[in-house]
Amino acid sequence: MIFRQLFEPESSTYTYLIGCRDTGKAVLLDPVLETVDRDLAVLQELGLTLEYSLETHIHADHVTSACRLRSLIGSKVAYPEMDGLPCADVSVSEANPLSVGSLTFQPLFTPGHTDAHHSYLIDLCVSRRVFTGDALLIDGCGRTDFQNGDAGALYRSIHEKIFALPCDTLVYPAHDYQHRHVTTVAQERERNPRLGGGKTLEEFIDIMAALDLPYPKRIDIAVPANRLCGDCPVIENAEAMEPPGPSVQG
Amino acid sequence: MIFRQLFEPESSTYTYLIGCRDTGKAVLLDPVLETVDRDLAVLQELGLTLEYSLETHIHADHVTSACRLRSLIGSKVAYPEMDGLPCADVSVSEANPLSVGSLTFQPLFTPGHTDAHHSYLIDLCVSRRVFTGDALLIDGCGRTDFQNGDAGALYRSIHEKIFALPCDTLVYPAHDYQHRHVTTVAQERERNPRLGGGKTLEEFIDIMAALDLPYPKRIDIAVPANRLCGDCPVIENAEAMEPPGPSVQG
Repeated sequence: MIFRQLFEPESSTYTYLIGCRDTGKAVLLDPVLETVDRDLAVLQELGLTLEYSLETHIHADHVTSACRLRSLIGSKVAYPEMDGLPCADVSVSEANPLSVGSLTFQPLFTPGHTDAHHSYLIDLCVSRRVFTGDALLIDGCGRTDFQNGDAGALYRSIHEKIFALPCDTLVYPAHDYQHRHVTTVAQERERNPRLGGGKTLEEFIDIMAALDLPYPKRIDIAVPANRLCGDCPVIENAEAMEPPGPSVQG
Repeated sequence: MIFRQLFEPESSTYTYLIGCRDTGKAVLLDPVLETVDRDLAVLQELGLTLEYSLETHIHADHVTSACRLRSLIGSKVAYPEMDGLPCADVSVSEANPLSVGSLTFQPLFTPGHTDAHHSYLIDLCVSRRVFTGDALLIDGCGRTDFQNGDAGALYRSIHEKIFALPCDTLVYPAHDYQHRHVTTVAQERERNPRLGGGKTLEEFIDIMAALDLPYPKRIDIAVPANRLCGDCPVIENAEAMEPPGPSVQG
């Protein structure tokens, strides 16, 4: 599967391009009129043929490019059957999923925002995941003030190894203190308060130096225990330790 | 691939269970001593054999269960080679990835938090993605005050169709106003301010009724245009419209 999450800033709309690598066929989900040229360029760049535009619902905040795409490149217009639109070429419903190459978009009837709104499930697809431990966290990063930590090294690690990955790579960190579960390379490049928005090495080092974090409660037991792979003699003490609190992110 | 994101609340640590569906072999990434029993139960439930525990670094906030797992079920202990731990069975580095069944964990040297910290990339794996349009957004949901919107219906849609999916299903919404890109079913069940933490239907309806949102700027042009699949006569007007602002979430 080929996947792109594309953004239209005026209406803050995500358009998703999903293509089948084997057949070169693709779908644009919720395409926006103003970004037709960009979307056509991405299709060409990836060598994909647009089979369908597909909508989750009749949008109230932007105009779809479905019709324009059809007139420009002959793609078919797919809408939830329940919308009853005569301009649509193809209707989808829970009983009538949309197949493109080896991919299936399974419609899920999810009314409420509109009465015919549908979500779409792709149950089998290829993705890239990176597990970043305490290097890069969601809206944060690991501390650099113990265990030979080094803010400059962390900055380079994140830029050279994580931010260099494709934008939609899924980032699964080792911790989160606010019940967030996953992020992407693009999200952290854009909005991570310590690293995002093009912060320089010097800015990052200043931010890390100013954190003024407390001494980690468990460090004196955890580090020696972990240097023994968590071996048992030390573990006996570890079990009596206080809860650690949010020690790695600060 | 079989994937589980597991959470240890005292240190807010995510442990990742990654298994190969074909061979039944699995890896636990950053397992925590206190959750050994849970992790063994998950392995058993999924019919997986633990080949390795694997660490991103020597943790300072919790004790790994690597050694305990080895003594209980014979799994091998894998650490970054650079940590130089005699208790490890297997050492990994950028030049020495870890393969388990058909999966490869490619180490990425990411120092800074510690000087031997590694992230891991899995470049090809199977995931479940749901594209939720304006039904479920990150920390929000679509409006229900126009286009036959209905808060009760939206509540049921999200609970019955989205929240019923496996917890780690990736949720890709149609909008985000804060540069967030992706969420999961688990994240929204837990912390969505309108729906999470077990909010009742009545609470949700009250929240939606109290939003007091402005009339969407583009709705009178966008809805008719989209009912024509974005057909051109209406589009001419649409292009002259004001920017829409964050109208669907409120």
